[in-house]
Amino acid sequence: MSGSLVTLTTDFGTSDYYVAAMKAVMLSLHPDLKLVDLSHDVKPQDLMAGAWLLKHSAYLFPEGTVHLVVIDPGVGTDRRPIAIKHSGQIFVGPDNGLFSLVTDNEVFEGVELRNQQYWRTPNPSSTFHGRDIFAPVAAHIAAGVPLSEFGPAISGLDVFHWAMPSSDKNGIQGWVVHIDRFGNLITNIPADMVRQLGPSGDLRIYVGTQIIRGLVDTYGSVPAGEAIALYGSTGNLEVAVNKGNAAEMLSVYQGAPVSIILDK
Amino acid sequence: MSGSLVTLTTDFGTSDYYVAAMKAVMLSLHPDLKLVDLSHDVKPQDLMAGAWLLKHSAYLFPEGTVHLVVIDPGVGTDRRPIAIKHSGQIFVGPDNGLFSLVTDNEVFEGVELRNQQYWRTPNPSSTFHGRDIFAPVAAHIAAGVPLSEFGPAISGLDVFHWAMPSSDKNGIQGWVVHIDRFGNLITNIPADMVRQLGPSGDLRIYVGTQIIRGLVDTYGSVPAGEAIALYGSTGNLEVAVNKGNAAEMLSVYQGAPVSIILDK
Amino acid sequence: MSGSLVTLTTDFGTSDYYVAAMKAVMLSLHPDLKLVDLSHDVKPQDLMAGAWLLKHSAYLFPEGTVHLVVIDPGVGTDRRPIAIKHSGQIFVGPDNGLFSLVTDNEVFEGVELRNQQYWRTPNPSSTFHGRDIFAPVAAHIAAGVPLSEFGPAISGLDVFHWAMPSSDKNGIQGWVVHIDRFGNLITNIPADMVRQLGPSGDLRIYVGTQIIRGLVDTYGSVPAGEAIALYGSTGNLEVAVNKGNAAEMLSVYQGAPVSIILDK
Repeated sequence: MSGSLVTLTTDFGTSDYYVAAMKAVMLSLHPDLKLVDLSHDVKPQDLMAGAWLLKHSAYLFPEGTVHLVVIDPGVGTDRRPIAIKHSGQIFVGPDNGLFSLVTDNEVFEGVELRNQQYWRTPNPSSTFHGRDIFAPVAAHIAAGVPLSEFGPAISGLDVFHWAMPSSDKNGIQGWVVHIDRFGNLITNIPADMVRQLGPSGDLRIYVGTQIIRGLVDTYGSVPAGEAIALYGSTGNLEVAVNKGNAAEMLSVYQGAPVSIILDK
Repeated sequence: MSGSLVTLTTDFGTSDYYVAAMKAVMLSLHPDLKLVDLSHDVKPQDLMAGAWLLKHSAYLFPEGTVHLVVIDPGVGTDRRPIAIKHSGQIFVGPDNGLFSLVTDNEVFEGVELRNQQYWRTPNPSSTFHGRDIFAPVAAHIAAGVPLSEFGPAISGLDVFHWAMPSSDKNGIQGWVVHIDRFGNLITNIPADMVRQLGPSGDLRIYVGTQIIRGLVDTYGSVPAGEAIALYGSTGNLEVAVNKGNAAEMLSVYQGAPVSIILDK
Repeated sequence: MSGSLVTLTTDFGTSDYYVAAMKAVMLSLHPDLKLVDLSHDVKPQDLMAGAWLLKHSAYLFPEGTVHLVVIDPGVGTDRRPIAIKHSGQIFVGPDNGLFSLVTDNEVFEGVELRNQQYWRTPNPSSTFHGRDIFAPVAAHIAAGVPLSEFGPAISGLDVFHWAMPSSDKNGIQGWVVHIDRFGNLITNIPADMVRQLGPSGDLRIYVGTQIIRGLVDTYGSVPAGEAIALYGSTGNLEVAVNKGNAAEMLSVYQGAPVSIILDK
């Protein structure tokens, strides 16, 4: 287990003691663990943003990596603390819908974390399961304790429902699922759906205050300040402004609609 | 010493080169050190916030962990550079009151860092002792050099005085010592003091624009948007708003008074 | 190669999946790598700020450290992906001027990263070379693959031109190259140039709304709230306000002129 990987993803920020305490608990159990910060800057209680981050990074880690994920608006209520395995990656955190987004509700193996022997204390704080349940469990899993030790198997996840993009022969209707630090607008519309609609040059993309004609290959294909549509690194359609902030310039917020019309 | 732990806590942010330089100095001395970021987002020069963070995380680390703490508004003046040992943890940084909060002024063993042999240079920058004194000393301590090597023993710390909560049979008077990223208000009133005052249902908590009746167990015990009081993960009384930001909704700033009245 | 160091410097922030994905790609190739975050808070697309951070930290790392640097406004255009070696440190990233600032255009050894065998995929995303080209190459270099394996040698870097300070017997003209988190104004005027002009007490420093007479040794040499000039930790002249924010109090932005006049 020497050097086993545990990643951390939270909405805690780092100006409080929460992240520090979770790292302390894990390293006091197993000083050899290798902790990797993914993000502590997920917007407070934004399950969608956390799921987006994990979906596009967790599966790139080596098989057997443990992902400690604490975005937990319902801490202390009856949402279940769980650990699940999916595509070789192990996720530990609250069962509040986030993991259903990360795993696309595909088949998985999972347990509810009921065995208090692996908690930091049998009387966990009702406001900080990250320190008292999730961190110690993540450390024990990384050290080789099998999932079945932590509690009874679960047969499904709490599901987070969200609208998928829809399409017909005239167009596609989707929405902006994420806005990144640069103001790029990432949609839920996969490249394949766009390619099936028609040739890039015949498409008009309606987003915010703008109509964009056709797709380009890179941010730098147009003059600075001009809006473009392209396939981003997630494989979905993105809208960007070369050397500018698309969210600001096009007045677009997360959740905004994006329409693609075939123009023939 | 392979894999010895050094944690970093600063008010430097990470957009400057300061944190990077301290990591570089430590790893150039001992590439095997295991560096753990606790926080670089302590509010600039806020000793209280730094002390709060360390108080509730440092003692959870494995015995012998070295905590490099650089919140140093008086850098270059005559405040002493020190290293102290308390409850099995070692702290390295300026003697400016912060460590008196972390250790509650309890018995400790400490030295003033006068031995220039362990500095990065005998002529340290007057504005960045973090790079030139504290980081190299922390690395040497983690590598096994005994505290007594670094300079003469000290017999006390610079003390940071702050008001403790007071109580009588009718009520408790305390204040908000920390506001976390979620806007939760953490007070300096310990749970035991509240329990001694009277049964939870008979208490009224006055804070900011609000009077809260009684305590609850979890954030989720009330409808979204409602203010509550509960015992937080530090063991002190906290005031929160379910799925909301208590600091904003109750117009409360750090340092605001909190009164608890027994209502019979 | 066990424990080889790779540092990360980006303008990605950590609320997106970009940093997480780069870490995942490197650790999936070589789980033993030691990743060290320098900064992900470089202002978006600010090559100057990134260069400043690296210039004053990278050369403090142990020889052979690999520095992965992804500040890449021209991703997907024809700017070259490169790896260079300078003063024992190895830098991997886009050839967009940043490295010319870090190396002062001194002699270096470098290659263009054309060998797709070391990419994550022969069809890299046009918007995220960090994940698909730079991160895997950095991991392979840290694991011992020689630079010459990655592509043809290059004979020069894309150069970033910026104004150097100028001086005559009456004065010096320079500018503010960086403003740090505390609001300190760091100039491009080296201490030696100031010392040659005349004795500290005979100098007047013009900056923003203020004229400062003479230099001091430390922030704390003057009452709180007073503006001072001193030699900072980079060896250049800095302007600061004791326990205050000089940038705000003197209304100074990055790029503002700073004049020093000999007053006899």
